[in-house]
Amino acid sequence: MEDKEFSLSCPIPISDYPKVLLAHGGGGKLMQSLIDKMFRPSFSNSLLAQNHDSTVIDIKASKIAFTTDSYVVKPIFFPGGDIGTLAINGTVNDLCMSGAEPRYISIGMIIEEGFPMEDLWRVVQSLNTSAKEAGIEIVTGDTKVVDKGKGDGIFINSSGIGIIENNLNISPGNIKPGDVIIVNGDLGRHGIAIMAEREGLAFESKIKSDCAPLNGIVKKLIDSGIDIHCMRDLTRGGLSSALNELAESSKTEILIDDNSIHVHEDVQGACEILGFDPLYVANEGKFIVFVDPENANKCLKLMKSHLLGAESAIIGKVTDGTKPIVKLKSRIGTVRILDMLSGEQLPRIC
Amino acid sequence: MEDKEFSLSCPIPISDYPKVLLAHGGGGKLMQSLIDKMFRPSFSNSLLAQNHDSTVIDIKASKIAFTTDSYVVKPIFFPGGDIGTLAINGTVNDLCMSGAEPRYISIGMIIEEGFPMEDLWRVVQSLNTSAKEAGIEIVTGDTKVVDKGKGDGIFINSSGIGIIENNLNISPGNIKPGDVIIVNGDLGRHGIAIMAEREGLAFESKIKSDCAPLNGIVKKLIDSGIDIHCMRDLTRGGLSSALNELAESSKTEILIDDNSIHVHEDVQGACEILGFDPLYVANEGKFIVFVDPENANKCLKLMKSHLLGAESAIIGKVTDGTKPIVKLKSRIGTVRILDMLSGEQLPRIC
Repeated sequence: MEDKEFSLSCPIPISDYPKVLLAHGGGGKLMQSLIDKMFRPSFSNSLLAQNHDSTVIDIKASKIAFTTDSYVVKPIFFPGGDIGTLAINGTVNDLCMSGAEPRYISIGMIIEEGFPMEDLWRVVQSLNTSAKEAGIEIVTGDTKVVDKGKGDGIFINSSGIGIIENNLNISPGNIKPGDVIIVNGDLGRHGIAIMAEREGLAFESKIKSDCAPLNGIVKKLIDSGIDIHCMRDLTRGGLSSALNELAESSKTEILIDDNSIHVHEDVQGACEILGFDPLYVANEGKFIVFVDPENANKCLKLMKSHLLGAESAIIGKVTDGTKPIVKLKSRIGTVRILDMLSGEQLPRIC
Repeated sequence: MEDKEFSLSCPIPISDYPKVLLAHGGGGKLMQSLIDKMFRPSFSNSLLAQNHDSTVIDIKASKIAFTTDSYVVKPIFFPGGDIGTLAINGTVNDLCMSGAEPRYISIGMIIEEGFPMEDLWRVVQSLNTSAKEAGIEIVTGDTKVVDKGKGDGIFINSSGIGIIENNLNISPGNIKPGDVIIVNGDLGRHGIAIMAEREGLAFESKIKSDCAPLNGIVKKLIDSGIDIHCMRDLTRGGLSSALNELAESSKTEILIDDNSIHVHEDVQGACEILGFDPLYVANEGKFIVFVDPENANKCLKLMKSHLLGAESAIIGKVTDGTKPIVKLKSRIGTVRILDMLSGEQLPRIC
């Protein structure tokens, strides 16, 4: 039913082109019609309308943030989102972790020949809706089509530019002993939503990805004037990998309390069935903040007052230890090292 | 021999990891080692060293150009270049077509599981060399690995940011009747180099791609103060598609003289064997410039004085016609419409 509705409004006649052809990426008429009929009207804005090799932007800022991410998630549609939501929110989140206000985004699609035109239309709509929700403009793009069997449906790269309005310096180098670490909610939902879908696991209620744009909640923190030392979103590799990367970058030791980490019951159950540790599972709407201890409660309160931070919690701190490692205090009080995994655990979840 | 030399210096021990594994894109230790040992030291610069989700740049400009392109060329190594040279030069060229000075570039790789580590190392070296040649910094990146059979070796997305220092306005909207069109050399080499390699065609001497960064020659034109109405590089779809797009954007009629268009003899021969029209074949180091007739000779002379413009020629003009079409005056004097192709002609040449 849902698909039917989409197909009715897909601007490329499904009867003529039910599937994407190699020629849709060949630089000729077919590609032009895809761009002019599907992409441009969907993402419509004055910058995109420049119709040039690159988009000229009056940036009016002396400092910007720049980031890129490719999205190869499988399946491309999953509970709580799809590759389009991910491509916008993932890049928006990377930008705002530097304290930047996400403004402009590029979309590069690599489509496999034979990809259903209706699915492309769903992805385009989703890119558009997510961009609008996050307040970012899709200002430039690129379309390539690869032979059948040489891709996997669709891959999307998005690169983003954010504006840094003030003299903020939010980066791993600012992390120091004593810092309190706060997370904006429960862990593991995105990775498990994907894996459950991929493995065909049926739970009482579907586990939905937490995919969301974090620029709203981050803006709230920045506007409050709290001195934020560092932020990081908890994507591939989950909380543990993010903490390990930051411990390494800042040469500090981090101690996390398992008691304060929230994992929804259904996610915990799925993790046990699938053999995953939720501390290593990817999220797409979660981040950690490092602040001075005297600012921790104010920061926590602010985060809790935002829809995307209702379950925020203080989960640990930077200790006086001299080795760049992450330690976990377990629920029964023992302490162990939380290492980085090699990377086999959860491929293609974003 | 060449491969051997590369393998000797590849920083990821080939004996341990002769091929890229899924885990190299999993967000864990293996990915970290690829980034820390291969990518960061190769692309080394202070911005990349920030080690954060997004890279913060002191941009000191009020106007920027932003562009993105994904590269899916097959084969990835070809006479005159490889996917790495393309990923840098293609994006550099898109930026300078707006009159921007290319400065910062992102590299997003989608690697197929099993891709030879030595080939990855060659591509990384090529990205690095090309970036240095073009004077652009690789400031942020992303690595994804997809299952064997779900990709095609390696795809690269590069997104670029350029600075527009002055009040230049170089865009299709400025094209007007009377404008003279100049190209910086012969046509068709890139597409034919790829196709000859793909089809296993052997010519007396290998046809090499013309892949090159155009920012040097463009800077020369801009610095001269000549009023440039529009520029466009002649990639997918070649000269004909570029002209058709511009005729459409500017609602003008364009007339091209086939006598003034230069195609190397070996390229012409290969086109005849393969059944291609060189006017539709992709280039990766060619562009057209639109200027007022009174500036045409000065512009031509400047272009000819640059290494990448030695064979520059005036090839046509914008006429008073009212339909947005492109006409070609053939070598025997007849005039025909040069239409846009549907796009089947040359897939995956970039």
